[in-house]
Order: sequence, then structure tokens, then C-alpha cells
Amino acid sequence: MGMIGGSLEAFIGAVHRRGSQLDGEIELVCGAFSSNPEKSKATGEALYLNPSRVYGSYEEMILKEKELPEGERMDFVSIVTPNHVHFPAAKMALENGFHVVCDKPATLNLAEAKELKTIIDKSGLIFALTHNYTGYPMVKEAKAMVDAGDLGEIRKIIVEYPQGWLIDLVEATGQKQADWRTDPARCGAAGAIGDIGTHAENLVEYITGLHITELCADLTIFVDGRKLDDDGNILLHYNNGAKGLLHCSQICNGEENDLNVRIYGTKAGISWKQMDPNTLIVRTRDDGARIVRTNVGKLSANAMAHTRQPAGHPEGYVETFANIYRNFSMALRARWEGKEADPIYDFPGIEEGIRGMAFIENVVRSANDHQNKWTKFEI
Amino acid sequence: MGMIGGSLEAFIGAVHRRGSQLDGEIELVCGAFSSNPEKSKATGEALYLNPSRVYGSYEEMILKEKELPEGERMDFVSIVTPNHVHFPAAKMALENGFHVVCDKPATLNLAEAKELKTIIDKSGLIFALTHNYTGYPMVKEAKAMVDAGDLGEIRKIIVEYPQGWLIDLVEATGQKQADWRTDPARCGAAGAIGDIGTHAENLVEYITGLHITELCADLTIFVDGRKLDDDGNILLHYNNGAKGLLHCSQICNGEENDLNVRIYGTKAGISWKQMDPNTLIVRTRDDGARIVRTNVGKLSANAMAHTRQPAGHPEGYVETFANIYRNFSMALRARWEGKEADPIYDFPGIEEGIRGMAFIENVVRSANDHQNKWTKFEI
Amino acid sequence: MGMIGGSLEAFIGAVHRRGSQLDGEIELVCGAFSSNPEKSKATGEALYLNPSRVYGSYEEMILKEKELPEGERMDFVSIVTPNHVHFPAAKMALENGFHVVCDKPATLNLAEAKELKTIIDKSGLIFALTHNYTGYPMVKEAKAMVDAGDLGEIRKIIVEYPQGWLIDLVEATGQKQADWRTDPARCGAAGAIGDIGTHAENLVEYITGLHITELCADLTIFVDGRKLDDDGNILLHYNNGAKGLLHCSQICNGEENDLNVRIYGTKAGISWKQMDPNTLIVRTRDDGARIVRTNVGKLSANAMAHTRQPAGHPEGYVETFANIYRNFSMALRARWEGKEADPIYDFPGIEEGIRGMAFIENVVRSANDHQNKWTKFEI
Amino acid sequence: MGMIGGSLEAFIGAVHRRGSQLDGEIELVCGAFSSNPEKSKATGEALYLNPSRVYGSYEEMILKEKELPEGERMDFVSIVTPNHVHFPAAKMALENGFHVVCDKPATLNLAEAKELKTIIDKSGLIFALTHNYTGYPMVKEAKAMVDAGDLGEIRKIIVEYPQGWLIDLVEATGQKQADWRTDPARCGAAGAIGDIGTHAENLVEYITGLHITELCADLTIFVDGRKLDDDGNILLHYNNGAKGLLHCSQICNGEENDLNVRIYGTKAGISWKQMDPNTLIVRTRDDGARIVRTNVGKLSANAMAHTRQPAGHPEGYVETFANIYRNFSMALRARWEGKEADPIYDFPGIEEGIRGMAFIENVVRSANDHQNKWTKFEI
Repeated sequence: MGMIGGSLEAFIGAVHRRGSQLDGEIELVCGAFSSNPEKSKATGEALYLNPSRVYGSYEEMILKEKELPEGERMDFVSIVTPNHVHFPAAKMALENGFHVVCDKPATLNLAEAKELKTIIDKSGLIFALTHNYTGYPMVKEAKAMVDAGDLGEIRKIIVEYPQGWLIDLVEATGQKQADWRTDPARCGAAGAIGDIGTHAENLVEYITGLHITELCADLTIFVDGRKLDDDGNILLHYNNGAKGLLHCSQICNGEENDLNVRIYGTKAGISWKQMDPNTLIVRTRDDGARIVRTNVGKLSANAMAHTRQPAGHPEGYVETFANIYRNFSMALRARWEGKEADPIYDFPGIEEGIRGMAFIENVVRSANDHQNKWTKFEI
Repeated sequence: MGMIGGSLEAFIGAVHRRGSQLDGEIELVCGAFSSNPEKSKATGEALYLNPSRVYGSYEEMILKEKELPEGERMDFVSIVTPNHVHFPAAKMALENGFHVVCDKPATLNLAEAKELKTIIDKSGLIFALTHNYTGYPMVKEAKAMVDAGDLGEIRKIIVEYPQGWLIDLVEATGQKQADWRTDPARCGAAGAIGDIGTHAENLVEYITGLHITELCADLTIFVDGRKLDDDGNILLHYNNGAKGLLHCSQICNGEENDLNVRIYGTKAGISWKQMDPNTLIVRTRDDGARIVRTNVGKLSANAMAHTRQPAGHPEGYVETFANIYRNFSMALRARWEGKEADPIYDFPGIEEGIRGMAFIENVVRSANDHQNKWTKFEI
Repeated sequence: MGMIGGSLEAFIGAVHRRGSQLDGEIELVCGAFSSNPEKSKATGEALYLNPSRVYGSYEEMILKEKELPEGERMDFVSIVTPNHVHFPAAKMALENGFHVVCDKPATLNLAEAKELKTIIDKSGLIFALTHNYTGYPMVKEAKAMVDAGDLGEIRKIIVEYPQGWLIDLVEATGQKQADWRTDPARCGAAGAIGDIGTHAENLVEYITGLHITELCADLTIFVDGRKLDDDGNILLHYNNGAKGLLHCSQICNGEENDLNVRIYGTKAGISWKQMDPNTLIVRTRDDGARIVRTNVGKLSANAMAHTRQPAGHPEGYVETFANIYRNFSMALRARWEGKEADPIYDFPGIEEGIRGMAFIENVVRSANDHQNKWTKFEI
Repeated sequence: MGMIGGSLEAFIGAVHRRGSQLDGEIELVCGAFSSNPEKSKATGEALYLNPSRVYGSYEEMILKEKELPEGERMDFVSIVTPNHVHFPAAKMALENGFHVVCDKPATLNLAEAKELKTIIDKSGLIFALTHNYTGYPMVKEAKAMVDAGDLGEIRKIIVEYPQGWLIDLVEATGQKQADWRTDPARCGAAGAIGDIGTHAENLVEYITGLHITELCADLTIFVDGRKLDDDGNILLHYNNGAKGLLHCSQICNGEENDLNVRIYGTKAGISWKQMDPNTLIVRTRDDGARIVRTNVGKLSANAMAHTRQPAGHPEGYVETFANIYRNFSMALRARWEGKEADPIYDFPGIEEGIRGMAFIENVVRSANDHQNKWTKFEI
């Protein structure tokens, strides 16, 4: 693996490194950790990389690695930069024969995401998108329950993603995470909606298989001086007739990272919270509620395939990245061995990326339309 | 107290009786418990009432009681009938000199509520509306915190009221609670919105003092054969610029009675859940979270005035009715003694009733408008 | 009902009044609320009693009421005094033909409790002991599950009752609750063990039907100047071979009233917490966990018989007293009507009182024995 | 790092590998993964090790690695075998110049642990013991609070470790984890007490700095055919006068891995649960309760030094091992660089190992003594 972005001061780069290394299947062999060569070099040193494989730009890395003999050169790139670099870096990697793991959202805008799909399809290479929250065992279990019909027909879906870290103008303090996430040039047309709203949208679509058909959005910038939405409330209609709500925010004072979802069907309702990720509650009116827990009792094959510890030994955030990297490495290996990848070891790809970018653009379009109630979800 | 409605098979009548009797300040002396005289009589017997004061209709009760000597006749009526009887019964009671406690929502429609206010004002009598959920000590504490500025400027409000008891056509089975609550002639223009949505709206307005200025509603009837909404999702704008979400439902499979509210301000965020009513969580980004509990540590005078037990001895639903009845009886006593009522012992009245009826009508209007996004909140 | 003790400044008297009046089946007609006649009188006035039936002593009350005609005089006494008055008041009431409801623990010591049983048996009257915590619906459900064999053979029982209100010498401040509960002359041989440990012991014996056969106790007085234990840890052996732990404390800083119990059997384990009383968790290794909730789904007849509200409308502490008083009144009525009382409407009596007093004495004996490990549980 | 034990079918070996690799500071370079050379070889292959450094025994590994040039040979061994191999493997590694990380409990018995300390002291090498649960950030915070005096004088300590996986004779099914953990020859004198009770004991001593002075233990074998205790209840006295309870069990049906601790002092009480590890509750009688959370607000340097993610991104079990390995690697590096290790980056060593072995032996001695109540804690 070669990493693009992820210098020492970044947050998500270290997460990708830990996730990719957890299972001992992937080795970090090179990197272009920063557009600042000094920073890239310092990061490479801290990671004990061979200095000759620490590059000053991703372009350099891709070209130089390509010249290395097969078996020695990196097999794929991991892109962990701000959003605006996703597309050019992924494009160049794919066009030079490298598979790609990319942080979400896929690209800077929908057009790029569609173009990226064309490039991927043409390349025949593997592309993984780290919508990590669907990597939790209990999210896998929720999906398996929906697939098995345990919820009956789905009627109502509430998905929330409140955070509170941007209650004031953190970006003015030089805090790196806040800096680019609030800058349209680097993060795209939306703030909270792009950064966390897409996770919420992806989570629902992953579990239920439903698609949004129309929506009505109300976005707000609460903090003076901020350029992009820090709060959003959205009414949703799904393609089976279900109704939904999605809200996400970065100004919910004191909230940490409370992604959560409730899905109600004719037979049962389920709820799951990212901050208590090894618990899935299943409720029914007539038979009461069950607590489904990671590695307790009989669970779906999909849930078990993403569980590492015995019951009660908490698995958390880093394992969700590990699950994507592990599954991606299994897909690579299957390809090398000429086998079919096992669908139980799933991971998000460009289709999810396109839907996420479309979500952002449709939400922003709806929010900017103060007259018409419903905005058709267009891709 | 004389009760109108509340025969043995009703749910809310028994709640009012228990709440009114809990503190030993109020005595049930007469009743017209049903429009069916046999049922009324049977209820009166079960309640050990003097048979001569068990009436076949509220009209009879009001007129007969009025003829009794002062000190012997009932002091006030408690109206616990389906909604369509609220207005005529309250009107007749007031016009004959009896104070009124009335279940919510205030009336069948907004026009009646406004007219009722005129009648109340003219009568000079006391009218209490049993929006009971604001009677919990921790709701009082939340209001006191907002009033003291502990939350700073309020930015976002999420209020939810999911239930699951109407996931199928319960009203077709003869179940009495479902029967009238789904019948427009007896409950008004809305189903879930009127029955429980008004509690949610009232809870927010009580705690924050904010008013809705415009809204965008999406109501649904999920169960075939049902006549009124069993689910609603609403975007809200408040008069200080805060944004909000309200959703309520009676088809959230497995949910019991999960009224809950989260309010986020510039200084802190709070959350409260009716099903864990003695806990109020206060969160801040920079100083972490506190658990505020009924009768633990230093609390507001308002919270303490509505607490009966030492810490950790759960107070629940019946106490919320008791708080309204107790405060109403204190207001009556203050009047008799020519004193000012102490504002700490507050209870909802016709103003809250009017706002609740306006909420229903504005929501239904918005839901029926599939074109325009925002509906001004009009009273 | 005539009340003995329970003046305005007492805690438990008001609880008994509210509990007894909640269902409208019992009327407070007289009282000897304090050994101080002025206080008794003031309490009677505040409760709107006929002054002629507010007495200066329980002896006076019993004798005067006895002279009133049947149908007019009180039917039973409710004894809510400090412990040392329980026995003489109950004895006199019974010997003069009045049934008795008595707060726990039954008496000042085991000898009194045994004598009281003899008196009750001789009188043929009804005696109820307000071990109220077994009145919760989910405790009834737990008992029903054990009775049905759902837990299999019981192996381990952990019961806890931590409180924190006596972390310092509150009794020196004149606080009335602390005052008599820490005075051996009025509360008996134990402090925390008598006041709350007996609730814990009773809760386990009620749910499981098991009896303690031997125990090993470690009692402590943590607060200087205190005369009785404010903390206790006890190892227990039960008559079926189960092992147990009981600990109770009044110096667990910040704990409110956290009575809780966990019972593990060969087939399942259950847990219940008084501060979240409407929830019962049932766990199994192989089939995961269930959340059993008051009035949700199919519950035992016993649980349903002690439930007043629909699901999700919290029932709490006052209802546990109401359940004992309601059941006691049903037993009285059954007797008057010459019928058998329905065993579903159960309440604790003198047998539980004797076991509670024996528990106190055995624990104190064990705690005072620093040599021998196991103390046989003797009655 | 060279690993001793930890073949593919083992549980704890994979945990150590993941934990040691999470931060990219440690590389697994060799291993003797099983006493069965075929299994060892297969494990080495699966881990992509150089076959020449996959050994058939730890003796072979230690001797062969010693011959490799410095910089190439392993720096330390990680011992993840059943208990009976800990001592000989650690001894040989130390005597041949290799530092040691060892799973807990330290050895098969107390005598071995003491001898191991002598060997370590003589070698001047570093020894880490993976009592991993003290590696959680909120356990670090709890310790920091105690050290800062925030709890005042500690009075009462309750520590629990219930599991339910051994409710029947799992060891008879060939399940590898159960197999050796219930065999005295491989795990030592105690079952549950050694496997999990030592974690509970270590957790309390780590947070509070207190030592047990005497104890009274009740151990049970509930499952027919089992050779060692599967349940234990223990009364404890600490060296400051605090009283405690420790219970642990592997027959608590449905419990997963519920290590938890409550510590009550004169100023505050705290509680922490391993299954919700990023939350620490601090309670006071007079000022209510606080929720302290990983990476929220102002925390101790020690807690922050063991935190990898932003608030609300759950850190779990694997991070606790990573913390020990990371700190161990920092200590190694400090030594190589001739610096003092920073005490904030602490990890358990042989002192904790000796105390743990002494705990086991004292508990077993007390349990076997049915006459004397208190057993002095001897080392």
C-alpha cells in the first residue's frame, strides 16, 4: 500500500494506517503524505519507511512506483487527502494500474464521481470507498435482518448524525480538521452534509437497500463567518413508500459523534447507535424487544465475518476501517488467484460514492429552493 | 371535583382520578362518566360515589350541581371525554360558574379554542389543560436552565414522539382508545399529530419559550383503512432563528411512548426522555456532560416544587397529572383566599390550548400543500 | 384507615397516604400522627380530617375508634412510625379488632416479630408489611419466570442496595430521617442492614422462593460518631446450593436508591434495577438477551395485575405502595364477602417480617464474630 | 518481536498481534507459535513470516535468534501460551538477553512469580504483563482522579467480573479456550479466580493504589466434572481501612465480559464498565453526577496519552493491548536512547504479576478454610 495524504498532523491518515495494518494482511511500503515535501519526509521517517519511497507528491509516487518491479512496487494506493484531491489522485493511480482505496466522500462533486466510475470500469481495477460505519458487525446484522424480511415492509426511517465540535469558528484557529472541512474549494458544495450527512445516507441505503426518491432540505450556517452548512434537517421519501428523516449537525453542543439509525417495519423496528456499536435493539409491539450483541448467540454470517473478539470485548472504530481494508485485500487476493470474491466480505465502492455525491447535490439544491417543497433525487 | 367522561373502560379517566387524588387535596364528589347512563351509574358505583350525584349527562350534572349549596356542590369539572365534547362541556361548565380542568388537545379545532378563550376570559374562572408531560421535575429544571441562560442562544431543537401501538387497524377491533382517536368526528383534523404531536410541540414551547414561525410537514397514513395520519415528520423554524425537527408516529413498531427532546444552544445542550423522566443530561463540548436527577443536588425551585420523593425513588406518569391538579387546586385556594398564586406552581391553560390547536391546523395545512415548502404558522 | 405516625415532617407517612389513596379504594378517616398532640393536630388539619378523629396517641385512637359504630369506625390501622413503635401499636390494634398495615422492618427485634405472629394468628386478622419493592410489575414478572422454570436451577444471586445520603453525620444536623434510623433504641440492632438490607433480602426471597441457610457478614461504621452500621457486605448460601452476595450501604457517595438484583440460573439470567423499574433484562448465553417491559407483549397475570398504565408511561415508587394497599383492601373485601382472596393480588405479611428480623439478627451476629466464617441462619 | 504461542486457533495470540501492530511501532519477525511444529509452520505462513524464522519450539527460537546479528534478531518475545509455559519461556528469554511481554497471570504459581522477579532484576531487562484492562483511557482517568484526591478517602470498593461462557462443560467439547483454562496443570490453582479474578484485583489496585490486607473467599465449582472454581465471591479489607467485594464468575448465564468497578470515597464515587469503556461516571451526593468520556473536555495527561480517536469514535479492547505494547516499545526506545521513560506511558510488570499470583493463592487458601473468617493476604 502507498498512502496519499495522511501526514502526522492529519486525523484520518492514522486511522487508515491502523485499520489497514490491524490484520497483518497489508503493508505500508511508500507514501506521498503531504504536498509539502518536508512534511511528507518527516511522516515517512516516523513510519519507518524506506526514505527512497517517501515521495513529495502523489504524481511522483505513482510514476516512480510503477517503474519498480512487480512484487516490489505498491499494489494499491490509499487516498486520505481533503476531498478535492480524491479525483485526480484516484484517476492517475487507476490509469497507471494501481487499485484504489479512497476516503469518502468519493470526489469534489457528482460529475467527478461519474467520471471516476467510467475510469474505474475502463481500468478493470478495484476501488473501495471507506464509508466505514457500515463495517460494524451489528450494521451487517441489521442488513441481514432486513434482507431476511424480519422487519416486514419498511415504513419509517430516522437517521441522525449530530456532532458538536464546530459550535464556534474553530476553522479560524488553524485547527487542521476544521480548516479544510469548511472550505468549499477543498471539501465541495456542502459542509456537515458532505462530511457526515453522506455517512448517514449511506448507512440507511446499506441496511435497507432503499433509495431516496425525493427530499426536502433545510440547511443552516449557524456560526458567523462559516462558509458552509453546519446543520441540516431533511425530509425523505424512499422508493418503497417509506418516509424518512435525516438530520446531521456539527453545532449540537456536547454531542460527540452520535450517528444512529432507527428503522421501523410492519413486523419489527430496529435501532443502532455508533457510539454503542456492538448493540442492536430489535423491538416489536407484540413480542417485546431483543438485545442483539456482537458475537452473542446466533448471528448472520455477514456479522460474524466482521467480528474479531469474543462477546463483551468491545470492537470499535478502528475495526471498521480494518474490515474494509481486510475485505479489499481479500478481493485483491481473489483476483490474483483467479477466484470469485466472497460477497460476505463486502465493501463500498464507486456506486456508493456516486449516490453520496448525488445526495450532497440534491440536498444543496433543495436547500437553496425556498419555494418548492419536494426535490426529485437525481443522479 | 365532578368528572365528565372517564367511564371504567376509558384509559385517561382513571389517570385523572389517580392524579387528582394523589395529594389528598381534591375529592371526586360527582360525575357524568358516560353518555350511556348505565355506564355512568356503574362507574359511579365502582367509585363509591353517592348515587344521587352520578349523572346521565354532563348537562344534567352541571345544572343539578349548580343547585346544591356552596361548599357542597362540586368546585370544578374535569373533562376527560373524546375531543369533540371538550368545547361544549367546558363552555357550559364555565357559563354556570364552574372552573375547568380539561384533557388535551383543548378542543376539536382552532376556532373552538379561540372561542373558549373568550368564554374563559369573560367568566373570570380558572382553566387548566392537562399537557401533563411538562409536569415532570426534570422538565421544570430544563425550563429553569433555559430561563437562566445556561444554554446560551438556542440553535437546534429535536423533539420526537414515537409510539407503535397502531401498527395495524386496531380501531377495527373495537379497542376503545384506538376507536375515537382515529375518527375525525371525535378527535379532529389530525390523528397522531393531534394526539401526541401536540404534546411534543407543547413540551418545546414550555421549556424554551420559543414559538414556531413556519413549518414544513409530511403526514402519512400507513395503515390501510385508517382515516387520519399515523405518522408525521415536520421541519420547523422558531422565532429566534432556531431550526427544529418534530416527528411523531403511532406506527413505530415496538416503541412504547418515547416522547423525548434535545435542545442545543451556544453554551450547552440538553436532552430528556419521558421514559426515563427523572434524568436530564446536560452536555457541553468543552466541559463534558452532567447527569441532573430529580432531587439530587441543587435544583431549581420549580423542579423541587414538583418533586415528592427522595432521590432514586422513581416518580412517574401519575405524578405529572397530580402536579397539574395540585397546582390547579392551589390556584383555586389562592383565589378563595384572595391571594396571588405562586408562579412556581404553574400549569398549562387556554393559551397553550390555542397554540396546540393552531399547531394541528398549520401542520395539516402544510401537509396538504405539496407545492409550497414553508407554511407560515398562523393563529 | 387510621394512621399511626406520619406527621407532616415525616417521609414515609406521606408515601403511605398517597399509596393508599391512589386507587380510591381506601379513605383516611383518622390518625394519631405524632406522639406530640400539637403535631398530630396540625397534620390532621392539613389532611382535612374531622378534628374529632385526630388523636394525641395511638392508644387513644384505637380505643376511641373501637367505640364508634361499625361502618363508621376505621377498618384498619397503618403504622408508619419508627421501628420501636411497630410492635406495641400493632399488638394493641390487633387485640382491639383492627387489621394492620405496617411499615418494615416488622418490629424492633426478632422476638417481637415472633410474638406478633402469635398475636396475628390468634386474632385472625390481616397483617400487611410494606416491603414495597416487590410490588413492581417487573418484580412480579421475575417471580413468575422463576416459578415457571425459565431460569432453570438458580446458581448465583447478587443483590445490592447502595445509597449515599449518610456519607457524613447527617443525624447530628437534626435531619429527622437520619435521626431515628441511626438510633438503636428506635431502629433496632442494625442501621443500613435493617433499613435497606432487609429490602434486599426480601426481594431475593420473594423472586426466588429460596431461603438463606448460612452467611458471612462484614459490617462497618464509616462515619465517626455513628452508632450503627452504615455499610455491609455479606456472603450467602441458599437452601438449594446457590451462592450469593448482598451488599448495602448508606455511604456510597452519589448513589441514590439503587436497589438491584441479578439472578443466574442454568437456563437464563435476569437483572432488575429499582431505579429503572419497568425494565427486566433476561439474558442467555446461546439466544441473547430480551428486554421485558411493563405492559409490553405477553406478561404473567401477576405482573399485569399490578400495572396501571399503558407501556411507556412510567410507573414508580408510589405505585408499589398502592399495590400493597390495593391488594390488602381486596383481601379485606374478600373476607367481608366470605370469599377467597385471589393469590395473584399478594402482599407481604408477618412471615416476611419474621424472616427480615431474623436476617438482621443473623447478620449482626455474624458481623460480631470475627473468628468463625459461616453463621447458620437461625430463626 | 518474536511470539511464543498464539497459533491460528488460539484467541489471545491474535489479540497480541493486532495490539502490537496497531501503531506501526513493532514488527513481528519470528515465532514459535505452537509446540506442534506443523501448527507453528502453518501459523507463520499465514502471517507472511520468513519460514526460516518460524520455529518448532521457543527454546529453538531463543537460541537461533540470539545468533542473529543485532538489529536483525528479535528485540523481545511475546509469550501468549497457557500459563504453565509463562515462567520457563520468560526465564529462558531473559537469560538470553531478550526483553519480555507476557500474558497474565504471570506464572503458574506465586513461587515462580517471585523467582521470575529475581531473574528480571538480575537481567536488567524489561518485562511487561498484559493486564490490558488498565490500558483504557477512562481507567487512566480514574487513577488520575484518585491520585488528585478527587474521591477523598476511599471507603468502599466493589469490583465484578461476571462471564457466562462456561455454564456447562464446554471443556468436554474440545473448545480450546475452555480446555486449558479449566486444567490445573496448565492454568494453576484457580479457574475463574486466576483467569478473570486477577484482572479485577489488578484493576482496583491500579486505580486506587490500595492493597488487600485480608480476605474471606467463597469459591464454587457449579458445573459437574469441572476441576476448578467457576465462581467466586470474596470479602476484602484494604490497607487504608476500605472495605470491598470482589466477585467473578464464568457461570453467570448471558453475561459477556462485564468487568466493572465502583469506588466510593468521602468526596465522590466513580463507576466504570469494561463493556462501555469510554465512559466514567463520577457521582456526588451534593453536586450530582458527571459523565466523563474519552477525549471530551479536560482530561488527565495519562488518559490523553492512551487515546487515539476523537470523541465518540469508540476505542475498544484491541487498543488496550496496543497501549501496553506501545508503552513497552517506548520504554525500550528510551533505554536504547539512554533516556528516562516517561511515567505517563505506564504498563504492568512483574510487581503486578506477583500480586496477582499472591491473590490467587490467598483466595484459594481462604476458600479451602471453612472455619476461619479472615485470611491474611501474604506474599
